[in-house]
Amino acid sequence: MALIVHKYGGTSMGSTERIRSVAQRVAKWRRAGHRMVVVPSAMSGETNRLLGLAKELMPHAAAPEAMRELDAVAATGEQVSVGLLALALQAEGVPAVSYAGWQVPIETDSAFMKARIRRIDEARVQADLAAGKVVIVTGFQGIDAEGNVTTLGRGGSDTSAVAMAAALEADECLIYTDVDGVYTTDPRIVPEARRLHTISFEEMLEMASLGSKVLQIRSVEFAGKYRVPLRVLSSFTPWDIALDEEAASGTLITFEEDEKMEQAIVAGIAFNRDEAKISVLGVPDRPGIAFQILGPVAEANIDVDVIIQNIANDGRTDFSFTVPRNEYLRAMDLLRSRVQPAIGAADVRGDPRICKVSIVGIGMKSHSGVAARMFRALSEEGINIQMITTSEIKTSVVLDEKYMELAVRALHRAFELDTPPRADA
Amino acid sequence: MALIVHKYGGTSMGSTERIRSVAQRVAKWRRAGHRMVVVPSAMSGETNRLLGLAKELMPHAAAPEAMRELDAVAATGEQVSVGLLALALQAEGVPAVSYAGWQVPIETDSAFMKARIRRIDEARVQADLAAGKVVIVTGFQGIDAEGNVTTLGRGGSDTSAVAMAAALEADECLIYTDVDGVYTTDPRIVPEARRLHTISFEEMLEMASLGSKVLQIRSVEFAGKYRVPLRVLSSFTPWDIALDEEAASGTLITFEEDEKMEQAIVAGIAFNRDEAKISVLGVPDRPGIAFQILGPVAEANIDVDVIIQNIANDGRTDFSFTVPRNEYLRAMDLLRSRVQPAIGAADVRGDPRICKVSIVGIGMKSHSGVAARMFRALSEEGINIQMITTSEIKTSVVLDEKYMELAVRALHRAFELDTPPRADA
Repeated sequence: MALIVHKYGGTSMGSTERIRSVAQRVAKWRRAGHRMVVVPSAMSGETNRLLGLAKELMPHAAAPEAMRELDAVAATGEQVSVGLLALALQAEGVPAVSYAGWQVPIETDSAFMKARIRRIDEARVQADLAAGKVVIVTGFQGIDAEGNVTTLGRGGSDTSAVAMAAALEADECLIYTDVDGVYTTDPRIVPEARRLHTISFEEMLEMASLGSKVLQIRSVEFAGKYRVPLRVLSSFTPWDIALDEEAASGTLITFEEDEKMEQAIVAGIAFNRDEAKISVLGVPDRPGIAFQILGPVAEANIDVDVIIQNIANDGRTDFSFTVPRNEYLRAMDLLRSRVQPAIGAADVRGDPRICKVSIVGIGMKSHSGVAARMFRALSEEGINIQMITTSEIKTSVVLDEKYMELAVRALHRAFELDTPPRADA
Repeated sequence: MALIVHKYGGTSMGSTERIRSVAQRVAKWRRAGHRMVVVPSAMSGETNRLLGLAKELMPHAAAPEAMRELDAVAATGEQVSVGLLALALQAEGVPAVSYAGWQVPIETDSAFMKARIRRIDEARVQADLAAGKVVIVTGFQGIDAEGNVTTLGRGGSDTSAVAMAAALEADECLIYTDVDGVYTTDPRIVPEARRLHTISFEEMLEMASLGSKVLQIRSVEFAGKYRVPLRVLSSFTPWDIALDEEAASGTLITFEEDEKMEQAIVAGIAFNRDEAKISVLGVPDRPGIAFQILGPVAEANIDVDVIIQNIANDGRTDFSFTVPRNEYLRAMDLLRSRVQPAIGAADVRGDPRICKVSIVGIGMKSHSGVAARMFRALSEEGINIQMITTSEIKTSVVLDEKYMELAVRALHRAFELDTPPRADA
């Protein structure tokens, strides 16, 4: 009999009816003899409601004192969820107890609104499990060394669940969400998209960071670091399907590069259009120039994703990168007013109407010609590639955003993702 | 410069706009140089919303495990309030920090839903005050020795505020509420009712317990025990009135029986129609009979208020008492099915359509004829008295409920409560 962690998202906890159905599902696992820990999110809409109230009252400058209060307020959403779920389980006749992060305790650093988990004291939870109780722990939050409530940032409940699983050395961590697994790409764009039965940890990291919003990326990193077997599955299948069937559903994120995975060169196609590209042209080719360009951008708390610098010509080069689209105007302003004069660049140009499309696959490591196959497929559709970056397990291109759907469909077909590889069938 | 505790009720915290106005009021006191601790309730409606969700999911039998979860859920309402108020104060430029009960900590026993405060560690709050911060502490809740969140029961925030004031040896505890003080009786029934500038602690206890729902009775007991000067005043006066004027408004609850108070024989008229009367007739007059009647009632968790037993006649007596009206049917059933046969009583009769009207005044101790004056006033209105009980500072009568308003008005007039006594003018 295994130790299992379940995580339920806000939609799964969205009403008392839904919470009752979560309780019934957990009760089924408990009755099958498993020791159960459950990490639920706040009821859907609740965190936004709380932050909305707080933002109406906040001082303009978000000092650490204000962020501390924001975290204390936001954390109550999950504190309500755990209590309600414990009651629903008790009503099912299953002994259950809930804990807020500070009660476990889940110790974090003091970076309010984006705290990192430092340590989990699992003794209290283990004692409850030994006593036959289902233990329900708040996601998204912890307590710092000074006794302040902290939150882990948006989507942090995934990370909480994986961290609990790591601390307890759980046999598996099941993330119940509103999709039934990880797909080769978004089925809304490619109807032939296929659910993957397994995906490697590295591929999942790339898929998540590239906009396949199934799992929070930090939770995947955490799972990788502590080798927590992680499964993404749907909370919308009826709670009373057979446990064996449920336990094999969804997508399992694995850590071994077995033969099965080698067969799929490309696991999936990721994409997003949340970015904008910026090029600083005619940059003097001298040491430190990249820092002079990106240093001020980082100081302004603007995240940079793709960065490209090609070889210099006549002592000058062009430097390009992408930023979140909603930071585009601020970044352009910063570069034109401060960076361009400081480094003597010829011009700063930008375009917010771009998209990024990536092929992701651990098989790329050992197969040459994968990128070429990608570029050919795009060329056959007449799509111009604006920027290219590659890593060991992914190749990304930046395109005019109007080509996004066309490019994703062409690549899905080119890499034969519509039909399952034999070993994965 | 004094140490002042403010307590704000749910209505005062009912919206972000209201919270901003609470912050402005507290900021005014802070700027006048006072060290400020604030205890706000949950936003109005919030505790009911949370308990409503919980009750939909609760098991039928409310075991301690379920009550623990109920408390954890209900306590979040105040945790939101304190964070929001801290933000609003910071936005006013006033350094502020919020604490949940467990962070102070406010230590309680483990009686979930009706916990009692055992001890408050005031060191952290004192340090913040010394650092110039306004300290905002959740009402209604604490933490037990096992680290569980507990709540003090309905209206518990008044008690939290008084307990904080006692622990900090505050100069005054101001309870801001939706009425502007304690009145000689309910102005909705007697338009001439007059606000009392002061009321003695004992009188306030009787007024509160008799249904003048201005303050939770436990908070008054607490204030009496620790001699915390307590003032009830309105949170609906504009926040920017002069501090001196505000500080002298409302009603001050005092502990010294000074001359001023001696002058008012009766401080006020209290009443309620939330009770029902029950009489057990033809009860054998023998030792232990009161326990045989009321023991089963207490076991069924039915509160008993007035109890009357007159002298016996021919070895038989009648035993009467009042219970909350919503427990009337349950109490009658219990008495008829179990008590009557067990003790061999002749009959059990009841009437839920009654009211209780009381005159309350510390001056009654030293003035004879007060009760007689009460009975004469009622008799002049043709009102029949069904039951009478007296204590040192109050006399209560039970009447047909249809006479309630008439009786209250007649008594208000008979004791000249419409016109202020000279020393209180």
